[in-house]
Amino acid sequence: MSAPLQPRLDRAMSSVTIPPPECMLRPLEVPFRYLFGPGPSNVPPRVLAAGGRGIIGHLHPEMYEIMNDIKKGIQYAFQTQNNMTIAMSGSGHAAMECAVFNTVEPGESVLVAVNGIWGERVAEIAERMGANVHIMVKAPGGVFSNGEIEKALAKHKPVLFFLTHGESSAGLAHPVDGIGDLCRKHNTLFLVDTVASLGASPIFMDQQNIDILYTGSQKALNAPPGTAPISFNERACQKMFNRKTKPVSYLFDMAHLSNYWGNDGQPGLEESWRHHREVAGYLWKGLEDMGLKLFIQNKDLRLPSVTTIAIPEGYNWREMLQYIMKHHNMEMTGGLGPSTGMVSVRGVLKF
Amino acid sequence: MSAPLQPRLDRAMSSVTIPPPECMLRPLEVPFRYLFGPGPSNVPPRVLAAGGRGIIGHLHPEMYEIMNDIKKGIQYAFQTQNNMTIAMSGSGHAAMECAVFNTVEPGESVLVAVNGIWGERVAEIAERMGANVHIMVKAPGGVFSNGEIEKALAKHKPVLFFLTHGESSAGLAHPVDGIGDLCRKHNTLFLVDTVASLGASPIFMDQQNIDILYTGSQKALNAPPGTAPISFNERACQKMFNRKTKPVSYLFDMAHLSNYWGNDGQPGLEESWRHHREVAGYLWKGLEDMGLKLFIQNKDLRLPSVTTIAIPEGYNWREMLQYIMKHHNMEMTGGLGPSTGMVSVRGVLKF
Repeated sequence: MSAPLQPRLDRAMSSVTIPPPECMLRPLEVPFRYLFGPGPSNVPPRVLAAGGRGIIGHLHPEMYEIMNDIKKGIQYAFQTQNNMTIAMSGSGHAAMECAVFNTVEPGESVLVAVNGIWGERVAEIAERMGANVHIMVKAPGGVFSNGEIEKALAKHKPVLFFLTHGESSAGLAHPVDGIGDLCRKHNTLFLVDTVASLGASPIFMDQQNIDILYTGSQKALNAPPGTAPISFNERACQKMFNRKTKPVSYLFDMAHLSNYWGNDGQPGLEESWRHHREVAGYLWKGLEDMGLKLFIQNKDLRLPSVTTIAIPEGYNWREMLQYIMKHHNMEMTGGLGPSTGMVSVRGVLKF
Repeated sequence: MSAPLQPRLDRAMSSVTIPPPECMLRPLEVPFRYLFGPGPSNVPPRVLAAGGRGIIGHLHPEMYEIMNDIKKGIQYAFQTQNNMTIAMSGSGHAAMECAVFNTVEPGESVLVAVNGIWGERVAEIAERMGANVHIMVKAPGGVFSNGEIEKALAKHKPVLFFLTHGESSAGLAHPVDGIGDLCRKHNTLFLVDTVASLGASPIFMDQQNIDILYTGSQKALNAPPGTAPISFNERACQKMFNRKTKPVSYLFDMAHLSNYWGNDGQPGLEESWRHHREVAGYLWKGLEDMGLKLFIQNKDLRLPSVTTIAIPEGYNWREMLQYIMKHHNMEMTGGLGPSTGMVSVRGVLKF
């Protein structure tokens, strides 16, 4: 530890025994394929191009704007107004585990409709995290009647009922109408997998009383794989944010994910007005401290989005504005119409 | 269910009550930023371009070739010949959970060296899955001696010992030599986190007897976030494939992941380390010449990819960082977890 830097790095240099593989020197080659399987699907050029954009940080203001746009898009695709709507980093399996890990505690009863591979998978996930799993089984492609479902709900009293809307292993779009109501009646959360169906087959999260809905990006949504949209309604949030135990996964804990996605409240108009006023007040004070006079003297009459500065005696406003643009890349203007030459005008910088 | 298709779809069409948001009609806009935080890093154009290539299926023969190339690249970067070397879909956190979930069973003893946020995180992950967690604690930037580590190994007899090689919250490159041997002696698996250091600071998985090693894609490797390289050696495989219980996560179960990755069957690292060290040395000197103090005083212990600057007396770190971002488009951050407010953190720019 006390040895000087150079010898240590030299020693490290001579310790590299595994050479760089040749494949690292080739550019990535990807053949074109028509993807007619259940997924991934071909991705339109404009979406592929978006994937080649530069990287910004996960905590940058622009990233929150992008995330907010994504959230609105998911709310539209799911036909939901749920605030707790996010895109997970991961496959449809990640959303599947996230849904189960967050809404179920070890020992609680879970009911799974199994008529293909996805029901089997959810049953296994719930078993691994210690749930008390009950399954209703039909052959691949089989449809569960609402009567059968209600009977099982009454018998097993599950906290969660899982159904696959788009069962890709059988090509089945399972009817969903009425099941959400049965689940409410029996105090059960209704979890629906639409990985293979969303965007292709109608689903209405709010109108159909679905409590938790998720999908994948790489199917009918025609985006690259690696993102899984998921949404939780108020009932689901009530359950998952009032647990006695922590979810078994830190990564998928909605307590963290929801904070990151800003679900602790979105800025509305009031917040925007407040923010503008605060930033403008800061600007006004700074300008006055520099000895400049503001054109509108009564603070209550000042527009918070546009600040007008009286041109100081003896200065040429055009030269000033040109100087500011040239040296600071900042555009300011010289008044409009009757105020030309009287003021310089500066909008409020807003992030 | 027995109704004909057309009326059902018509009914669905008229049920769309949430209109598409306007943001869906705009192309994605991403501003350019110099990413000088601990990560993500700026991505070179040729890597960005690869991210815009067309999609092929996960089971296509060409995909297996690409995966095989990726595996060789990771083996090189890790300096390992481990066959069980894969790239996970997910963040560094995904690799962290994968490592713990697969190698530890509920009730088993785990020892975690905590000298910053990442040790804390692993301790929490191990606790959630039911391990018997013991921690060794030092202040941010603190170094554990091999003597201290051996004493704790002997006392707690852990199946797994965790150490962060690149502790980004303090800017520390923790020495690793000799610890792998101690772990073998005490029948413990040695797990090392190199998310913030791999490619910047020398690490030799095989020579240093590291049993499990992982990193992230978006730091010194200069790739987009969302992929986490991880490798397990024979000792780690012995433990994880002879468990009595299934890992709590299906998604992260190496029994599946390893099958998928076929484990049943340029400028090099030296230049990257040298480059990071040289650029970091230049940066350190410049900062010190400005009168700033670095948080890690011993040069040999400084992480070359993440430089931590002690916050000067009397300054508000949040205001400083906001100023730098606003006026220079440069991202820097303010410490992580226990080091918050103590340091500002700056990654190395690398193109």
